[in-house]
Amino acid sequence: MTAGTIIQEIETPVMVVDLDAVERNIASMQRYCDEYGFACRPHIKTHKVPTIAHMQLSAGAVGVTCQKLGEAEVMAQAGVPDILVTFPLVGRAKAERLAALSRSVRMSVAADSPRVARDLSDVLSRQGVSVDFLVDCDTGLGRTGVQSPEQAADLAVFVDSLPGLRFAGLMTYPTVPESGPWLRAAREKIEALGLEVGWVSGGGTPAAFRTHEVGEVTEIRAGTYVYGDLNCIEDGTVSSGDCALGIRSTIVSRPTRERAILDAGSKALASDMPESGRETHGLIAEYPEARIYALDEEHGYVEVRTGLDGLDVGEVVTIIPVHACTAVNMHDETVAHRRGEVVAVWPVAARGRMK
Amino acid sequence: MTAGTIIQEIETPVMVVDLDAVERNIASMQRYCDEYGFACRPHIKTHKVPTIAHMQLSAGAVGVTCQKLGEAEVMAQAGVPDILVTFPLVGRAKAERLAALSRSVRMSVAADSPRVARDLSDVLSRQGVSVDFLVDCDTGLGRTGVQSPEQAADLAVFVDSLPGLRFAGLMTYPTVPESGPWLRAAREKIEALGLEVGWVSGGGTPAAFRTHEVGEVTEIRAGTYVYGDLNCIEDGTVSSGDCALGIRSTIVSRPTRERAILDAGSKALASDMPESGRETHGLIAEYPEARIYALDEEHGYVEVRTGLDGLDVGEVVTIIPVHACTAVNMHDETVAHRRGEVVAVWPVAARGRMK
Repeated sequence: MTAGTIIQEIETPVMVVDLDAVERNIASMQRYCDEYGFACRPHIKTHKVPTIAHMQLSAGAVGVTCQKLGEAEVMAQAGVPDILVTFPLVGRAKAERLAALSRSVRMSVAADSPRVARDLSDVLSRQGVSVDFLVDCDTGLGRTGVQSPEQAADLAVFVDSLPGLRFAGLMTYPTVPESGPWLRAAREKIEALGLEVGWVSGGGTPAAFRTHEVGEVTEIRAGTYVYGDLNCIEDGTVSSGDCALGIRSTIVSRPTRERAILDAGSKALASDMPESGRETHGLIAEYPEARIYALDEEHGYVEVRTGLDGLDVGEVVTIIPVHACTAVNMHDETVAHRRGEVVAVWPVAARGRMK
Repeated sequence: MTAGTIIQEIETPVMVVDLDAVERNIASMQRYCDEYGFACRPHIKTHKVPTIAHMQLSAGAVGVTCQKLGEAEVMAQAGVPDILVTFPLVGRAKAERLAALSRSVRMSVAADSPRVARDLSDVLSRQGVSVDFLVDCDTGLGRTGVQSPEQAADLAVFVDSLPGLRFAGLMTYPTVPESGPWLRAAREKIEALGLEVGWVSGGGTPAAFRTHEVGEVTEIRAGTYVYGDLNCIEDGTVSSGDCALGIRSTIVSRPTRERAILDAGSKALASDMPESGRETHGLIAEYPEARIYALDEEHGYVEVRTGLDGLDVGEVVTIIPVHACTAVNMHDETVAHRRGEVVAVWPVAARGRMK
């Protein structure tokens, strides 16, 4: 496949990305951040493509967020100068890789335990480098994170005492209304102990455009907004016209009037179901009323309602996935197009970098 | 990582495969096939590794099964001489790729519509090649496949009239007790029309070892048996001692007494839930009583019951995934070991070959 190819001519299943929409989405998030004075630090787990990270930086992002260190290595290799890794880095090998990265990139990390901080400090200080450390705060999700503002203050003080780490601030995911009072209490306790909370990083696309209502947060880490997906369309974060991501798929079987089978299953679309509770594995752009009611690994099952024409064998449709991040992760290539004409094919370079 | 490394020393998350168990599983399926006179045609979608396909062939398999043509190309390139593609191949590009493959490999395909057969015939016959064609029969699943023995006979006659295709027999998935009478009726109708049903291919690991009770089927296409997974352990197809597949994962956070967080989420384990209804995203071999109650993309949430020691930050555990095929698809490398010592690292060569 080369630039100039029409996306209709590409074999399916294939992941295509509308660059015009990507640019609109990047501009929209940056505009919001600029309006309210937030730093914008996009999460690259959605696209996993260095070129798109550079588009986000050119628009005004202060740096990027990576979930895994392997993703950070791909981005650093591609010249991204400022990277926050929000996943706890555990074990000597990862600490050494972090130390290596920190020699050429401004690296920051987040974690929630003295154990992780101490182990990182041991390696980083011995190697004569230091990185910023954010205390991971559980302000409601119930995943990682210290459980109270008091614990946040304790960890901040501990980190401040460690060589190789600089206590820099707080991090939470997602940013919800309850995050504001929690983070304020933590900041006040930490400041009362004489430390500066330079930076409070909040995350998640769904609530990103309401961050100014939360208070305390100084930085937005959002990922999905860059492409959009069915969840974004349903929660209003990205309009269907600005949804950049599609999985093009062919009808390969029409065994009954009521059922059509796609060549895209969970290995092309991922298995997520909509947050809204809507029972479909994706939105077929050309047939929004046709439900993808089940997925096998390579098959998508489409319910064809009485009176609905089309969806015949050989027809190609465009599916908007339920969740962009997990769907993108299934693909090796990002076919970037403008108005249906291919302008670039980028490897999903950080895909599979789970270590 | 090199041969001789101990798997405990490998950074996580990492997919490891016990080659001794793989050999036992291959031998066990081949022994069953030999005992009852079935051809064994393993489905490579589980492992996606040419070396393991060759182990299956060396044990006595007649060829392999691939779901997607891209997988078949990887296997053909690696010297696999006989490949059945069970997914309907739609579109000129795929027909041309099939024609190219058929020059060096014995290729067979399955489909359920005259449209697909005619389009394949057009290209194959023009290129002067021919491939075996199995009629895909829906004997109960409700996915692809002709809907009745009469339709099977109609399609068999149509295929027999087409250049470039040889009607060879019938294919179904999965093989269930109801498949027997269905396939018998189809075979009898086809034979009454003067055609020979040379080959009846049945599929699926869960019922594989009961294929002799079904009748009619002459060949077993099973995939998951080679590794096993939590579903196999629960349905009795593969014992826990013979389960070859593990995802090694580190505890990276222990925010509360009740919750531990793994560095393996849906991007390492896949999202499938057990067929049994058991509510876990995998079996932690060292803590079989600890439930993985939720997955985010990179996080696994473990419920730690009162009184359970361990699962502290830094500890590494081995997770048996719910579904081997989808979990393997998340990884780029297969770390093959014997008794914990790495003997080879193979690319998951057919991963992502969804076209």
